[in-house]
Amino acid sequence: MPSDRAAGRPRAAHKMVLVVRGELRLTAGKAAVQVAHAAVLLTQKASSRAPRELADWLADGQMKVAVTVPHLDEMEALERRARAAGIATVWVEDAGFTEVAPGTRTCLGLGPARVGDLDPITGGLDLL
Amino acid sequence: MPSDRAAGRPRAAHKMVLVVRGELRLTAGKAAVQVAHAAVLLTQKASSRAPRELADWLADGQMKVAVTVPHLDEMEALERRARAAGIATVWVEDAGFTEVAPGTRTCLGLGPARVGDLDPITGGLDLL
Repeated sequence: MPSDRAAGRPRAAHKMVLVVRGELRLTAGKAAVQVAHAAVLLTQKASSRAPRELADWLADGQMKVAVTVPHLDEMEALERRARAAGIATVWVEDAGFTEVAPGTRTCLGLGPARVGDLDPITGGLDLL
Repeated sequence: MPSDRAAGRPRAAHKMVLVVRGELRLTAGKAAVQVAHAAVLLTQKASSRAPRELADWLADGQMKVAVTVPHLDEMEALERRARAAGIATVWVEDAGFTEVAPGTRTCLGLGPARVGDLDPITGGLDLL
């Protein structure tokens, strides 16, 4: 999306990757909310720290990819690699009202960043 | 989230509701991305048109609820009721690279708004 950029355009040059923690076995709705939290937090971060990357990503149709890894330590390794590559990162910690304990890290958000910078880090991960 | 507001605090006074179109039978990952698109679009809309509601919602922990209704006409009815109540609305239309045709309406976003204003409109819907 948006739809007016759909037909035949080249794939986006910028994206966000949202990594859901698989071992928590969240429902589809709960996982969707965690992904959305991460996307909003990354957007807010970029608006102050990387407005040009944010504008590029929005102009590209705000591409997002939701993936999953089983365990927290794998998410932490992804975060370290992303930070080392200069990519913005954010953790979502759940308030714990429903499916998980308060403070549980549920999702890691990366970007927005150039696809060519993100793919070496997240390209091999399973789609959510 | 965030976690430091978790334990024992009162439920949020403001929220977003993200309505996924059930008949499309999106994968969990695709649905999560549509929900995140809606949340980012609503955040952007609120930052220019309703900064106080946005600030209240963020201060409340940016509560989001993902729900689903089967058909587009039900989503359109929800949108009309929300607009009549003065609640911000946004449609997500998919670019159609993968699971659906380009321009397909996949998700309706509502808010951020007071829980008491949203619940009469969306309170009876099924969680995603």
